[in-house]
Amino acid sequence: MGSMGKMVMRFLHKRSLATLPSQLIEKGQNRVVEASLTLIRERAKLKAELVQALGGSIATTCLLGVPLGHNSSFLQGPAFAPPRIREAIWCGSTNSATEKGKELKDPRVLTDAGDVPIQEMRDCGIEDERLMRTISDSVKFVMEEHPLRPLVLGGDHSISYPVVRAVTEQLGGPVDILHLDAHPDIYHSFEGNKYSHASSFARIMEGGHARRLLQVGIRSITKEGREQGKRFGVEQYEMHSFSKDREFLENLKLGEGVKGVYISIDVDCLDPAFAPGVSHLEPGGLSFRDVMNIVQNLQGDIVAADVVEFNPQRDTVDGMTAMVAAKLVRELTSKMSKLAD
Amino acid sequence: MGSMGKMVMRFLHKRSLATLPSQLIEKGQNRVVEASLTLIRERAKLKAELVQALGGSIATTCLLGVPLGHNSSFLQGPAFAPPRIREAIWCGSTNSATEKGKELKDPRVLTDAGDVPIQEMRDCGIEDERLMRTISDSVKFVMEEHPLRPLVLGGDHSISYPVVRAVTEQLGGPVDILHLDAHPDIYHSFEGNKYSHASSFARIMEGGHARRLLQVGIRSITKEGREQGKRFGVEQYEMHSFSKDREFLENLKLGEGVKGVYISIDVDCLDPAFAPGVSHLEPGGLSFRDVMNIVQNLQGDIVAADVVEFNPQRDTVDGMTAMVAAKLVRELTSKMSKLAD
Amino acid sequence: MGSMGKMVMRFLHKRSLATLPSQLIEKGQNRVVEASLTLIRERAKLKAELVQALGGSIATTCLLGVPLGHNSSFLQGPAFAPPRIREAIWCGSTNSATEKGKELKDPRVLTDAGDVPIQEMRDCGIEDERLMRTISDSVKFVMEEHPLRPLVLGGDHSISYPVVRAVTEQLGGPVDILHLDAHPDIYHSFEGNKYSHASSFARIMEGGHARRLLQVGIRSITKEGREQGKRFGVEQYEMHSFSKDREFLENLKLGEGVKGVYISIDVDCLDPAFAPGVSHLEPGGLSFRDVMNIVQNLQGDIVAADVVEFNPQRDTVDGMTAMVAAKLVRELTSKMSKLAD
Amino acid sequence: MGSMGKMVMRFLHKRSLATLPSQLIEKGQNRVVEASLTLIRERAKLKAELVQALGGSIATTCLLGVPLGHNSSFLQGPAFAPPRIREAIWCGSTNSATEKGKELKDPRVLTDAGDVPIQEMRDCGIEDERLMRTISDSVKFVMEEHPLRPLVLGGDHSISYPVVRAVTEQLGGPVDILHLDAHPDIYHSFEGNKYSHASSFARIMEGGHARRLLQVGIRSITKEGREQGKRFGVEQYEMHSFSKDREFLENLKLGEGVKGVYISIDVDCLDPAFAPGVSHLEPGGLSFRDVMNIVQNLQGDIVAADVVEFNPQRDTVDGMTAMVAAKLVRELTSKMSKLAD
Amino acid sequence: MGSMGKMVMRFLHKRSLATLPSQLIEKGQNRVVEASLTLIRERAKLKAELVQALGGSIATTCLLGVPLGHNSSFLQGPAFAPPRIREAIWCGSTNSATEKGKELKDPRVLTDAGDVPIQEMRDCGIEDERLMRTISDSVKFVMEEHPLRPLVLGGDHSISYPVVRAVTEQLGGPVDILHLDAHPDIYHSFEGNKYSHASSFARIMEGGHARRLLQVGIRSITKEGREQGKRFGVEQYEMHSFSKDREFLENLKLGEGVKGVYISIDVDCLDPAFAPGVSHLEPGGLSFRDVMNIVQNLQGDIVAADVVEFNPQRDTVDGMTAMVAAKLVRELTSKMSKLAD
Amino acid sequence: MGSMGKMVMRFLHKRSLATLPSQLIEKGQNRVVEASLTLIRERAKLKAELVQALGGSIATTCLLGVPLGHNSSFLQGPAFAPPRIREAIWCGSTNSATEKGKELKDPRVLTDAGDVPIQEMRDCGIEDERLMRTISDSVKFVMEEHPLRPLVLGGDHSISYPVVRAVTEQLGGPVDILHLDAHPDIYHSFEGNKYSHASSFARIMEGGHARRLLQVGIRSITKEGREQGKRFGVEQYEMHSFSKDREFLENLKLGEGVKGVYISIDVDCLDPAFAPGVSHLEPGGLSFRDVMNIVQNLQGDIVAADVVEFNPQRDTVDGMTAMVAAKLVRELTSKMSKLAD
Repeated sequence: MGSMGKMVMRFLHKRSLATLPSQLIEKGQNRVVEASLTLIRERAKLKAELVQALGGSIATTCLLGVPLGHNSSFLQGPAFAPPRIREAIWCGSTNSATEKGKELKDPRVLTDAGDVPIQEMRDCGIEDERLMRTISDSVKFVMEEHPLRPLVLGGDHSISYPVVRAVTEQLGGPVDILHLDAHPDIYHSFEGNKYSHASSFARIMEGGHARRLLQVGIRSITKEGREQGKRFGVEQYEMHSFSKDREFLENLKLGEGVKGVYISIDVDCLDPAFAPGVSHLEPGGLSFRDVMNIVQNLQGDIVAADVVEFNPQRDTVDGMTAMVAAKLVRELTSKMSKLAD
Repeated sequence: MGSMGKMVMRFLHKRSLATLPSQLIEKGQNRVVEASLTLIRERAKLKAELVQALGGSIATTCLLGVPLGHNSSFLQGPAFAPPRIREAIWCGSTNSATEKGKELKDPRVLTDAGDVPIQEMRDCGIEDERLMRTISDSVKFVMEEHPLRPLVLGGDHSISYPVVRAVTEQLGGPVDILHLDAHPDIYHSFEGNKYSHASSFARIMEGGHARRLLQVGIRSITKEGREQGKRFGVEQYEMHSFSKDREFLENLKLGEGVKGVYISIDVDCLDPAFAPGVSHLEPGGLSFRDVMNIVQNLQGDIVAADVVEFNPQRDTVDGMTAMVAAKLVRELTSKMSKLAD
Repeated sequence: MGSMGKMVMRFLHKRSLATLPSQLIEKGQNRVVEASLTLIRERAKLKAELVQALGGSIATTCLLGVPLGHNSSFLQGPAFAPPRIREAIWCGSTNSATEKGKELKDPRVLTDAGDVPIQEMRDCGIEDERLMRTISDSVKFVMEEHPLRPLVLGGDHSISYPVVRAVTEQLGGPVDILHLDAHPDIYHSFEGNKYSHASSFARIMEGGHARRLLQVGIRSITKEGREQGKRFGVEQYEMHSFSKDREFLENLKLGEGVKGVYISIDVDCLDPAFAPGVSHLEPGGLSFRDVMNIVQNLQGDIVAADVVEFNPQRDTVDGMTAMVAAKLVRELTSKMSKLAD
Repeated sequence: MGSMGKMVMRFLHKRSLATLPSQLIEKGQNRVVEASLTLIRERAKLKAELVQALGGSIATTCLLGVPLGHNSSFLQGPAFAPPRIREAIWCGSTNSATEKGKELKDPRVLTDAGDVPIQEMRDCGIEDERLMRTISDSVKFVMEEHPLRPLVLGGDHSISYPVVRAVTEQLGGPVDILHLDAHPDIYHSFEGNKYSHASSFARIMEGGHARRLLQVGIRSITKEGREQGKRFGVEQYEMHSFSKDREFLENLKLGEGVKGVYISIDVDCLDPAFAPGVSHLEPGGLSFRDVMNIVQNLQGDIVAADVVEFNPQRDTVDGMTAMVAAKLVRELTSKMSKLAD
Repeated sequence: MGSMGKMVMRFLHKRSLATLPSQLIEKGQNRVVEASLTLIRERAKLKAELVQALGGSIATTCLLGVPLGHNSSFLQGPAFAPPRIREAIWCGSTNSATEKGKELKDPRVLTDAGDVPIQEMRDCGIEDERLMRTISDSVKFVMEEHPLRPLVLGGDHSISYPVVRAVTEQLGGPVDILHLDAHPDIYHSFEGNKYSHASSFARIMEGGHARRLLQVGIRSITKEGREQGKRFGVEQYEMHSFSKDREFLENLKLGEGVKGVYISIDVDCLDPAFAPGVSHLEPGGLSFRDVMNIVQNLQGDIVAADVVEFNPQRDTVDGMTAMVAAKLVRELTSKMSKLAD
Repeated sequence: MGSMGKMVMRFLHKRSLATLPSQLIEKGQNRVVEASLTLIRERAKLKAELVQALGGSIATTCLLGVPLGHNSSFLQGPAFAPPRIREAIWCGSTNSATEKGKELKDPRVLTDAGDVPIQEMRDCGIEDERLMRTISDSVKFVMEEHPLRPLVLGGDHSISYPVVRAVTEQLGGPVDILHLDAHPDIYHSFEGNKYSHASSFARIMEGGHARRLLQVGIRSITKEGREQGKRFGVEQYEMHSFSKDREFLENLKLGEGVKGVYISIDVDCLDPAFAPGVSHLEPGGLSFRDVMNIVQNLQGDIVAADVVEFNPQRDTVDGMTAMVAAKLVRELTSKMSKLAD
C-alpha cells in the first residue's frame, strides 16, 4: 500500500486499525492518478486544437500549475500560488500586452492546461516519489501537443527537478539553465529529504539534465552550497559582486549546441522590498528591473520555464507580490512564444 | 460550440478569427468534463473503500470543494476558499477533536473527495449551466458511495442550488433547510443572472427541493426579498428581532417526515467582527457562539451541508475567518457523522 | 487679525515678519467664511427644492459633514471620516434599503448638503471659536430648508456642542439627548481647552440645551466625570452594569414635552472588536446589535443626530469600521425620515 | 436639467417620479457652482495678499486639491488623496525644509488654496463636462493672483487635461510637459469616455497645449498607445530601455521658446516597492531617487505641476505612499518657488 | 555543566569543540542567576519602600514580567508581551482610572518590579528547570515585600505553575483558582514536555496547590483533557453550555477557608474577534464584557494573578489585543489592591 | 532624590504626598543600578570565558541591547527592537552564515551580553543622565572582557553618544566614524534636549571622540544641520548627489592613525521601500545593496558598532524590517569578528 495521509496514518496506527487491505487501496490510488493525468492530457489537447484552429504558431506558452508546498522547509504557502498568479495576470488593472507588445489574450501566445491536482493526490495517500513522476508526466503531456511549451507555476522549488527532467527527456538532451534565486538550492539533501526545495538543482546536475547552470541573485549560501557548485561546475553569481557582474548578466547568450534554454525564477531572487510575499526574506536582492534586463536581453530559445516560491500567505494586503509573479510570467511568455509570420 | 473564455472570445471576435470548427471544440470540452467527473468519482470511491475497510460507519462526512466565484456580484475571492479552509482544519494550532469530542482524524468521521476543477472547466469554455450540472453530478457521485454525506466548501452561494438539487434528487424527495445568512439570496434574478449567488434559494423553492426553509441572521433584505419570502412560505428570522427569536432558534427540530435536514451557512451570517473575510460587510450579525448554539442544539438528521462565501482575499493577515470557516466545518461534521456502535 | 495657521505663525514670529496689516487679513477671512456659508446654504436649498419637487416629505434626513479633528486629544484622523462614511453608505456591497425597509435612494428619505470646508477655513487662519460658530450657522441653514433634518458626520466629538446649540436655538427650546459613547465627554476642560472633544456635553448642559441626557456605553470615566454627571443630572449607564440596564435601555421613550430627541453616537461606544477604527480602543463595549436594539426601539421624534469619532487611519484594511459608521447613519436615517402618507 | 446623481436618477426613473421642473434644478446648480468658484477665488486672493504683505516673491507654489476619482477606470480611491497628502507634508516626522534647503513654512514658498468641492458638485447633479470647466476656472483663479503658481493634488489623471488647458490659456501659449507615469494616458478614449484618466494626454496634444511631451517611466502601453505617441510626436521613454536613457533624462533642459514647463507626476511611475498605494500595481518602475534625479536636475521654468493617482485606500498601514506623494510635492515646490533676492 | 544555548551546543558538538571546562561555565551561570535575582529583589524592595513612605496600603498590586515563550507549542511571540502590555496600560489613549474608579497612577494601587531576565538566562545556558525555580524565587521576593501582591505578565501559560507554587508556598497553603482559557492546559505532558504551556494545571493539581480549580471559556479540549479534569476534580465550564452557566459564573464566591484566590487569564479565553493577538485562534469564546462580569462580580481575596499568552506578533496593526491585555491587568489590579481607609 | 517616574511624580505632587524621604529612595536606586551593572558584567564575563575555553579569537562580536526609546522625538517603538532583532538573526528562514561565509553559530564569531535593563531603571526613577552613564559603563564592561567587541542594538540614536564615548575612553583615543542615516543627528539640541536622538553626533564631535565623521544617506537636513556639519568638519554625503559619490563611498579606507573605526547604522538610511519599520519615513534613501557595498568594501579595523532606530511597531506584518536590521547586524559581525588562524 502507498502511504496514506500522514495524520490519518498516525491515527490508524494508534488505534491498531491499520490492517487495511493494501491491494484495494493501491488500486484506488492507481485509478485516481490515471484520472488526474487524463484530465491534464485532455486539457492540453483541447488547447492545442484551439491554437491549430486559429492558424497555429511556432511556439505557444502553456501554463501548468503545480500547487505543491509540502517540500518547502519553512512555510507551505506556495501551494496556494497558482490560482493567485492567474488572477493577477488577468486582473484588469493592467493591459493585456507585454512590455514589448505581445498580446496575451491571443491563445496562440498564451494558453493554460490548468493545475495538476497535487493536494488531492496527496490526500489519497499517493507518495512523494509518485507525485514527482506525475508532475513529469504532466509536463510531457503538455509538450506532446505541438506547439505548446510549458511555463510551470509553483509551488515550491522542489518541482523544478521533475519539470526539467521531463523537458530534457522529451527533447532528447540537456539544456542550459538560467536560475534566478537568493539560494543555490543545490544541497545534497535538506533535513534528510533529497527531493526538497533546497536540493532540486543537485538532482538536476547529477542527472545530466543541464549543460550550463547559471545561478544569479545568490546571497544566502553555505560552504556546502559553494562546494556543490564547484563540484557540478555551476556558474554562481553572488549579489555581493553583482555590480561588476551586471554587464555580463544583462547580455547573456545561451542554449546553442544543446536543446535550448530553461529559465527558473524563484521569486525571492528579488529584494523583499519588491517581493515581500516569499517564505524567506533575504534582504539585498535584485530589483524587478534588474531581472527584466537579464531576461529580456537574453539571446536563446526558451523551451520551458518556471516561476516558483511565491507565497500568498505572506503577501501584502493588496497582493503586490502576486502582481510581480504575474509580470514575471507575462514577460517569460513574451520570450517563449513565437507566432508564425 | 460552448462559450470559450470570455476575454479570449472578445479577442477572437475583434480579430475576426472566430471561425473555429465548433464541433472540434465541443468534443474537447466533453472529454474535459468527463475526465473531471471521473476524477471526483474515483476519489470518492477510494475514500468510501477506506471507510469500509476500517469497519464502516453509519454516516461519514465527505468534503467536496467547489471553487466557484464568478457568480458572486461583488468580489471573486470565494473561489480561493476551499484550500484555505482545509489548511485551517488541520493547521495544528488547535486539537483534532470537535467541541463535543468527535475525533476528526478518524477517516470514518471526516474524509475528503477534493475539489471539482471549476476554474479549469471555465477556462476550457464550459458554460455556466453545464458547470452547474457538473456540480450536481459531483455531489451525486459522493452520495452514491455509502456512507459518505457531502459537506460542500464554497465558493459563492450560487452553488447551493445545484448541491441541494442533487441531494434531493438522490434521496428522492425534499428536505428541510436551515439557512444562516445576512441576506435571503432569494431574488428572482440578480443583474439578469438567474443562477447568481443572490438567487439560489429562489431556484431551490421553485424546484420544490425544500419543505421548510428557515433563514436566520438576515439583516440586508429588500422589499422584493420579503415578498419572495412570503410567496415561497419561507420562515425569515431577521436580526432586528433576534433577541426574541433566540430561544426558538436555539431549540430547533427539523427534517421529520421529509428526507432530512440540509444546513447552508453563509459565513456572513456572522457579524464582521467575528468573520471579516467576507465580500459583504454587514454589521449587526450573529456571534460565533450564537451559530454554535443554533447548530449544536438542532435536532434532526443532517444529510448534507455547505459553508460558503468565505473570501480569503479580505481576511485578516493571520487568517481569522479561515479559522472560523474551518470550525463551522468541524462542528457541522460533528453533527453529520455517525459512527456505528 | 485672526490667528493664522499655527505653524506659519510660528515661522513668521521667528523671522520678525509678523508685521502684517491685520485689517487686510481680516477682510479676506470674512470673505472666505461668507463664501463657505453661501456654499452650504445653496446646497441645502437645492436639495430641499428637489424634495419639494418630488412631492415633499414630513422629515428628510440631510447629511452634513464636519471634517474637524484638531480638537481631538489623541489622533486627528476623524477629520478624514465624512467622505469615507459616504462612500461606505453607497458602496454597492450592500443593498440600499434599511433593516426595516426604508429606501435610501429616495431623495425624500436621504439627501446631502456636503461638507463644511473646515480645513480650508483653519488654513486661512480662522480661529476655533469662529469655526464653531460657522458649524452652528451651517446646521441652521440646513434646518431652515423644510423638511431637512441634519445628520452630522464628524469629525471629533467637539462638534456636538455647536450642532446641538444650533438645533435647540432653531427649534426654540431644549431636547432630550441619547448619547452613546465609551466616555462621558463632560469634563470642564481638557488640556485647557473648553471646546475639546472631552467637554462638549459640559457645554451643552451649561447652556441648558438638554432636558435629559442619557449616556450609554460608558466604561472610561474618572471621578470628575461622575461628579460632573451628578452636577448636571446626567443619567449615566456604565458598561459594568449593562446586563441589568439592558431591558430599560432597549425600551426608551424620550422627547415628550420638549422639542424632540437628539442622538449622538460616538463610534467607540462599540467594543473595538466591532469598531477598531477609533482613536481610543476601550475594550468591553456594546455590540453592534446592542446599539441597534437601543436605537431601533426608541420611541420619540428624532430632530437631529450625529455620528462622530470614526478614525479611518486606524480602520482595518477592508474598511470594517467605515461600514459600521455607515450602517449607523443608515439606521439613524431610518428613524429620522418620515414620508407623507 | 443637468444629470442628477446617477443612483438617484435611476431611482427616480424607476418610480416615474422624474417629472422634475428642470429649470428649477438648473438654477440651483448654477448657484452651487458659482458659490464653489467664489470660495476658491477668495482663498487664493487671501493667500496672495498674505504673500504680498510679507514682501512678495517671484513665484509662490500654491496647492489646489482636486478630489476627483470617478474617471478612474479601476478604483476610486484617488478622490481621497488631497487631505492625506497635505497631512503628510506637515506631519512632523520630517523637517520643514526641502532636500536643497528651501523652507516650506515660509508662505512665500508654499501656500494653499484648498480643494475644489468636486464631490459636492457631483452630488448636486453637475455633469462631468461642467466639472472639468470648473477645474479649469479654479486653476485660472489661482494663476490670476500674482505670484501664485498652481501645484494640483489629484485625484486621478483625468484632471491633467483641464489643468494644462487652463495653464496654457492663462499664459497665452503652449508649454513643454514632463510626464512621469507607468502608462502613456494617451488613448483616444477609454471605455467610451474621452475624458477618462487614460485619455488626458490625447486631449492635451489635440488641443495644442504642449510643444513637447516627454513620457518617462512607461511600462504598460499598448500598440494604440505607441501609435498615438507617434501621431502626436510624443517622446516616449520606456522602462525596458531606461538604463540607456538615464543620462539623457537626468539632464533635461525644457521650456525655452514656449511659456515654460509643466510637470505631471503619476505616483505609479514609481515601482510598487516605493509606492504601493496606487490603483495599478505595475512592477519594474523608477526608484524614488531616479525621479528626484530627473526632477532636481531639470533646467527650465516650472509654471505649474500636478501629482496624481495616489490611492490612500491601497496604501500601507503607516502611510508610506502618502509620505512619497508628499515628498514629490515638497521637491516640486522647491523647483517652482522663487523668492526675490 | 548546564545546557548551553541549543543552537550553539549543536554547533559545538558538530565541531568537536565541546570539551569545555564545565565547572567554569557552571560558576559563571551561578553568578548570572544570582545577579538576576538580586536585581528583582532590589526593585521590589525599592517599590515597597516607596509605598511605605506614602503611608502604606493593605494590598498593592505589583507587576512582574516573565517573558518566557519557549514552552509554547506553536508560536513564541508571548515572550514579547510584557513591554507591550506595560506600554498599553500607560498609553494615553485612555484615562488612568479603572472602570470602578481606582487611580492607577497612585503607587499604592499599582507598582512594578520589572521583568525577570529570562531570555538572557536561557542564552547563558541556564536549563528550563532552573528557569522555573528562578521564576518562583522572583515571585517570592515580591511577596516578601509587604504589601506587594504579584500580578504576573506572561509569557506563555507554562509560567503559571512556578508562580502558583511560589504563592502557595509563601502563604503556607493552597488557594482557589479561577482559570479563564480556551484550553484546559491540564495534559500530563505535551510533546514530551511536562512543563509546557499545556500541562501547567496538571502540575498545579498534582502539587496540591489548589483546593478548587474552575476552568471557564473552554472550547478546545480532548478526551484526555476531560479525563484529567475528572481525575483532579476540576470544575470545567465549556463554552457550548455557557448560556446556562452564565448566571453561576457571574456570581462566584471563592477562597474562603483557604489562603485566598488566584486568577489566571489566558487571553485566548476571549473570542478571536475580541483578542486576535493570540497563538491559537479558537472561535466561539467569551466576550470582553463576559470576562469583566465574571471577574468584577467575584467575591474573594485575590492574592495573586497572571495574564498570559498575549502574542504581539499576531496582534492587529493598531495593537487591539495589547489594549485588551492591558485592560485585563487594570481591572485585576482594581480587584487586588486595597488602600487603607 | 532622583526623579521618580514622571506620571507617578505628577500624581504625587497633585496629592501633596511628595514628602518622601529622598535619602531612602536614592539608596534604593543605587542598589538597583549596581545590580543592573553586575548582571551585565557577569554575562559578558561568562561569554568571554566560553570563547577562551573554545580556543579564543582575535575579535569576537558581542551584542548588547539598549532598549531606550524615550529620547526619540516622534515614536517610542525603538525600545522594543533588541529582542525582535535577535529573533530575526536566528529565525530559521535563513542560514547561519554571512554572505561571505562566516559561521554565526560559532561563539567565537558572535556572542551576546543581553540587554541593559533600561526600562526598569527608568521606572525606578533613575534620571536620564545616569542612564547614559550606565550605558557607557555597560559598554566598558563588555570591552574589558577580551576579545569581545560591542555591537549595540538600539534603541534610538541617542545611545550612540554614550557608546562612542565609552569606546574611545576604553581605547584611549578617538576613532573614525562611518555614520549611515537619513538625518545628520548633529543639532545642538532638540526640543531643549541635548541628549536627544537628533543631537548625539554634536556631543560626539564636541567631546573629541571622532577624528573623521562621514555621514552617508543624508536627505533630511536643515540649515543648522549643514552649519553644524561645517563647524565640526563633518563629511556629509547627501542623497541628492549620491550617484556621483557612489564610487568614493564604495571604496572607503578608514581608521589608520587612530584607534579604529566605529560604524553607526540608523536603519532609516535605507529607503522606506527597503525598511518601512522606522519612525521617520523619508523617501529617496539607499538600497540595501548600496549599504552592503559600502560596508563590505570598507577597509579598516571595526572596533565597535551600532544598529539603531528600527521601530517594530511600524514594521510590516511579516517583519521585513526586522530581517533587514538582523542582516545589518550579521554583516557587521562579519566585518568585526576575527578568528585566530
